Amino acid sequence: MSRPPHLAPVDLPQAYRLMNHGPTVLVSASYEGRRNVMAAAWAMPLDFDPPKVAVVVDKNTFTRGLIEGSGRLALSLPCRDNADICLAVGSVSAKDGVDKFARFGFASFSGQDPALPLIDGCVAWLECRVLPDAPLAARHDLFLAEVTAAWADCRVFRQGRWHFDEATDGLRTLHHLAGGAFFSPADLLQARMPG
Amino acid sequence: MSRPPHLAPVDLPQAYRLMNHGPTVLVSASYEGRRNVMAAAWAMPLDFDPPKVAVVVDKNTFTRGLIEGSGRLALSLPCRDNADICLAVGSVSAKDGVDKFARFGFASFSGQDPALPLIDGCVAWLECRVLPDAPLAARHDLFLAEVTAAWADCRVFRQGRWHFDEATDGLRTLHHLAGGAFFSPADLLQARMPG
Repeated sequence: MSRPPHLAPVDLPQAYRLMNHGPTVLVSASYEGRRNVMAAAWAMPLDFDPPKVAVVVDKNTFTRGLIEGSGRLALSLPCRDNADICLAVGSVSAKDGVDKFARFGFASFSGQDPALPLIDGCVAWLECRVLPDAPLAARHDLFLAEVTAAWADCRVFRQGRWHFDEATDGLRTLHHLAGGAFFSPADLLQARMPG
Repeated sequence: MSRPPHLAPVDLPQAYRLMNHGPTVLVSASYEGRRNVMAAAWAMPLDFDPPKVAVVVDKNTFTRGLIEGSGRLALSLPCRDNADICLAVGSVSAKDGVDKFARFGFASFSGQDPALPLIDGCVAWLECRVLPDAPLAARHDLFLAEVTAAWADCRVFRQGRWHFDEATDGLRTLHHLAGGAFFSPADLLQARMPG
């Protein structure tokens, strides 16, 4: 499909800002004509510039094989409006023969890398190249990756900052508590130096 | 000082739940009679049982030397009531000769490990043993650690779950946006399987 209407590129040195507040992400990849997507609450920034991320991807996921085959992964940040998708892709496995895109009726689009599926309906996207570290993956299911392109929905992220307080409720990111229950960020607080 | 009045132990298999929603943490450590604390937005769970965490600690921090010397670190989860402390400890360095505990007037207490300072006024605490991986630390400033004990303020975390919606506003965790501006989790949403 074509790109979402509110998609805007994010400057790479500001890409870490997309994940600084700890959102749950969707991890997607494609390899040899297969594509897949899964949910991951364990993801975080790892460096500023060039931006890097760290994400835990279990050995038993179908997506992991696609990541290891292609050396690429994408992180899409779901929002309240597509929380059901987030639960769904985290609850079934493509290893059981399920095409999650078809089954749950959601679309993907391409950013910079035509082979990397970005998930429609999300509010930010990071395209990444995996930094090979086989022992780290084998021992801890941990993948480190450099962000090669980043995008955000400009209604809710612009000028290097999230603007949740100014956007509609449904565009806020998801932060997984447990069992498909999510919090969203609210109530911006500006801390001050004591004394 | 003595332990906070609302402190309750968290079963280790549920310790990942403390950080699953992506809060900013305070990282503390002590070594050879020196102690320190710093703020870190880049921390996440790494495994369930035994629970492990991953946290980025920059080479230029004083805390890093204490972690590498002792092989131990603690994560304390600040809340809205002590957001100013969170900004303060992230804004000055003990390398400049500052004793942050004295300067900002906050206390620490001990959990299981008497040498590990846990930060008073926070809402959850994880005591950790570093899993030695010198190349990972040198290359990416990334530390992996096993959680050996976990604690939470039972007013806001109990039975393996955060209960932000039922607690006072000031006990909600902090999620760093930028420049000392923090969001807090709100508006619990229960996702449902589509179709």
